[in-house]
Amino acid sequence: MSRLFARYDQVLQQALEAAARRDYWSAYSEVPSGKIYGETARDDGLVAFEARLGKHFDIPGHPSERAVGDEVSPYGLSLGVTYPAASIETLMSASQAAAAQWAAADPQVRVGICLEIIARLNARSFEMANSVMHTTGQAFAMAFQAGGPHAQDRALEAVAYAYAEMTRTPVEAVWTKPQGKGEPIVMEKHWRIVPRGIALVIGCNTFPTWNSYPGLFASLATGNTVIVKPHPAAILPLAITVEIARQVLAEEGFSPNIVLLAADAAGHEITTDLVRHPSVSIIDYTGSSSFGNWVRANAGKADVYTEEAGVNSIVIGATDNFAGMCDNIAFSLSLYSGQMCTSPQNVFVPRNGIETNDGFKSFDEVASGIAGAIDRLLSDPGRAAGICGAVANPATLGRIDEARKLGRILRDCAPVPGLEGARTATPLVIGVDARDREAYAEERFGPIAFIVAVDNAAHGVDLAARLAEEKGAITAALYETDEARILAAADRFATAGVNLSVNLTGGIYVNQSAAFSDFHVTGANPAGNASLTDAAYVASRFRVVMWRRPLAA
Amino acid sequence: MSRLFARYDQVLQQALEAAARRDYWSAYSEVPSGKIYGETARDDGLVAFEARLGKHFDIPGHPSERAVGDEVSPYGLSLGVTYPAASIETLMSASQAAAAQWAAADPQVRVGICLEIIARLNARSFEMANSVMHTTGQAFAMAFQAGGPHAQDRALEAVAYAYAEMTRTPVEAVWTKPQGKGEPIVMEKHWRIVPRGIALVIGCNTFPTWNSYPGLFASLATGNTVIVKPHPAAILPLAITVEIARQVLAEEGFSPNIVLLAADAAGHEITTDLVRHPSVSIIDYTGSSSFGNWVRANAGKADVYTEEAGVNSIVIGATDNFAGMCDNIAFSLSLYSGQMCTSPQNVFVPRNGIETNDGFKSFDEVASGIAGAIDRLLSDPGRAAGICGAVANPATLGRIDEARKLGRILRDCAPVPGLEGARTATPLVIGVDARDREAYAEERFGPIAFIVAVDNAAHGVDLAARLAEEKGAITAALYETDEARILAAADRFATAGVNLSVNLTGGIYVNQSAAFSDFHVTGANPAGNASLTDAAYVASRFRVVMWRRPLAA
Repeated sequence: MSRLFARYDQVLQQALEAAARRDYWSAYSEVPSGKIYGETARDDGLVAFEARLGKHFDIPGHPSERAVGDEVSPYGLSLGVTYPAASIETLMSASQAAAAQWAAADPQVRVGICLEIIARLNARSFEMANSVMHTTGQAFAMAFQAGGPHAQDRALEAVAYAYAEMTRTPVEAVWTKPQGKGEPIVMEKHWRIVPRGIALVIGCNTFPTWNSYPGLFASLATGNTVIVKPHPAAILPLAITVEIARQVLAEEGFSPNIVLLAADAAGHEITTDLVRHPSVSIIDYTGSSSFGNWVRANAGKADVYTEEAGVNSIVIGATDNFAGMCDNIAFSLSLYSGQMCTSPQNVFVPRNGIETNDGFKSFDEVASGIAGAIDRLLSDPGRAAGICGAVANPATLGRIDEARKLGRILRDCAPVPGLEGARTATPLVIGVDARDREAYAEERFGPIAFIVAVDNAAHGVDLAARLAEEKGAITAALYETDEARILAAADRFATAGVNLSVNLTGGIYVNQSAAFSDFHVTGANPAGNASLTDAAYVASRFRVVMWRRPLAA
Repeated sequence: MSRLFARYDQVLQQALEAAARRDYWSAYSEVPSGKIYGETARDDGLVAFEARLGKHFDIPGHPSERAVGDEVSPYGLSLGVTYPAASIETLMSASQAAAAQWAAADPQVRVGICLEIIARLNARSFEMANSVMHTTGQAFAMAFQAGGPHAQDRALEAVAYAYAEMTRTPVEAVWTKPQGKGEPIVMEKHWRIVPRGIALVIGCNTFPTWNSYPGLFASLATGNTVIVKPHPAAILPLAITVEIARQVLAEEGFSPNIVLLAADAAGHEITTDLVRHPSVSIIDYTGSSSFGNWVRANAGKADVYTEEAGVNSIVIGATDNFAGMCDNIAFSLSLYSGQMCTSPQNVFVPRNGIETNDGFKSFDEVASGIAGAIDRLLSDPGRAAGICGAVANPATLGRIDEARKLGRILRDCAPVPGLEGARTATPLVIGVDARDREAYAEERFGPIAFIVAVDNAAHGVDLAARLAEEKGAITAALYETDEARILAAADRFATAGVNLSVNLTGGIYVNQSAAFSDFHVTGANPAGNASLTDAAYVASRFRVVMWRRPLAA
């Protein structure tokens, strides 16, 4: 057993057991506490982040022909960090030159190295939190959790699934075929894991680590070399990741070029050339559906795993906790200003109102219940900043202005109090009717929500499920008190390939997806063709090749 | 537990254990014996086959708008069987109408039905043997084995892998997340298997059942409806298969249209329209690389699993059993007249000869050793017919004529003695040099072999491996006495994604691939993008979808 594999054998086994049980489990604490991460960890992380600012991010030994990078924090700060950049051919050559050694490594060696990389990422979660915060606009606590331990859990999950798949077939076996009364035929057989080649990971602006780590670590563990292409507005978190990966690889005697950074500049992206390159065998992509379509059509023989866009819906039929429902929805709409791929956009409410524990509520009362809950939630400036964070992309503000014209403004968007200098926006809530499809039936990314009047809850379920089938959806939520209607909705959303949350009123939200329990994206509707992380996500990242011969007597 | 699942639970568990151990195991006897299949089975099978001849193959309830079919046996007999055919839209509509019921069935129910279908196919192995023989040209014994029990083993293998994947995630779980000193968050979660949609299986002429069953049964077990598109020259074996599948489905209360036959006529193939149809979600294809390229490029969002063509090689470095080597190679080249996707084409021999147990052998002595072994093997007419069978496609005879001009004829092709009236051909053996790439470096399907003079065995390994990387290869064989050279070749062929057989001299041949032990095709070179059967082959044929809610106290 390799030294690093032995170090992490237990956590790997726990991860595999958790993934099989799917009860709550986490390897990396989501609590940004000095008691867990070390009393100076918070300060050290900030110092490490600040030390990067205004400087070139040197990655020892990394191919470098020029410097790129002009990230500006949604909170206002210009990062001033530049990164090593090289031509596509330079990157491909370096990746290919490193491939044979990595492919030949024992799967346990590779898995041990991956787990060491993840452990070091965990130790640097505060540095990562600052980096994610100032590239994505996430509030610090969310940047810590989603950019740090939650992303690390997803990385571990991918490595665990990869390990399980790589070890399903024995390394060797004796095959004895009886021959009636004659001597049996006896063969010795040997199998090995052969990687696919170069894996390209295309990161997104809003969750540079959480969405990139599963593909990165699944490909790496299975023996592929990896080229990480960050979004030009969120390079730093992935540059730190690549830096750590390369340090561990070099320490273990491997070429650091097994993991490369393909940084580029906005307006001069190299993504299309990377995708079309014939040496790329695996592509993991997170981003828009329009570019996702292009990637899938132009990837050649490469396997493509995508998380694309979608239109997520909430359907309200009835509730026995009206206040809890409104509070829960308000939080889901406000969290990171609706910039999560899991954020709801449409809330389908019967036009004739619903039954609740507080008595009958008209459509307008439900709408104002949700709008009022948002107001209450965001009334405290510190809490508002901590929930909404900032807006990653300036284009989102334009979308909000557009959306204002699409219906009745039930709650207007406003800057987040206490975040002056930052690009912020609280949720805009628009009232429309089910027939106003041009308003609500496409993804309007950001803090834009529609309360959609429908005939009844079943009508809402049908509209939401059809939207998922046509445009994609990663989440759906339902409020309903009748068990038969709940089960019918579960059937309908399952057919549409959407994970459904029912009657969330407490401290858990439809946006949340927990590693080892919740599969993220199903792959069964246009919101993505893959799921984080199941066997399908890892099993094609390598092949099994055999040699056999008659067993010597 | 469903009734049918209970009936086959034990064989399913044995299959899963065999696939994990990869020792020899088979569920269906390959011995065409009355003691195993029933004393009248052989006669009954022939009678059943003959009863089909000259008639319309009626499939009760199958969409039918016209009749197609004009199969002619390579042994000379016109089958005169016609089959129900319908437009693409009729087939798609029927498949879609049957989908919801099948998708909603419990995975155990579906697996039970699949295993019952396979068991009934097994009971009709003699009928199938005659049908496969007279559509493919395989000799009877091979048609029985490859068309019957070996294909059934591959079907069972696919169902077993599918079952394992479908049951990896629990149907439900309770998720309890601690909240420090507060009450934990407790959620109930429910998962279900959601199929992808319509699965298209495109069969080939030479192995209509063996190559189609894995995809057919993997897709069916995972809840997809299946449209089976046979090669126009080999419809009967798949029509029987579809008939049996529909009988079992109907008996179990399901729509028989869950499995449909898409028969067509040579020259009027409907394959391209099926491949491009937007309702098709999965495509399994066996056939030429040129059409395989087209399928992969035109399949839209469908997942595509292919077995395409390749150039298989044998490299001879040295042997301690010269006669055994020559006999083994002679059999591999002669079996089914080289029409197996696993048949070797090129034999690389050092131009300066090799060391053997019979002393030094020059290039010409090795070549004549192999040619002479073929002559001896086929000297008995009955044995020759039983090994070579007939030639499936008339175009193969043209390729043989072309190949005659490509080098020095070391052994000429001839009709198989005792098979007058049949289209037959014994192996043509041509001597060429390594530089004559235009001769040997492309697939020449059929009984065409090249003995290629190389500098030494390492040169041969390199040429063979490069050919595999460029043109694809499903098998490779090596004769070598030096262990270090064997291991180096194993490394090189693994990199090229080819399964390698070393020093075969007894009753096992490089062409043979055993279910539950040998993965067929690696998916790691152009000979195919999938492997029969591993987790990657089944895991993407379905998705897992969840619903969750707070657990009631």
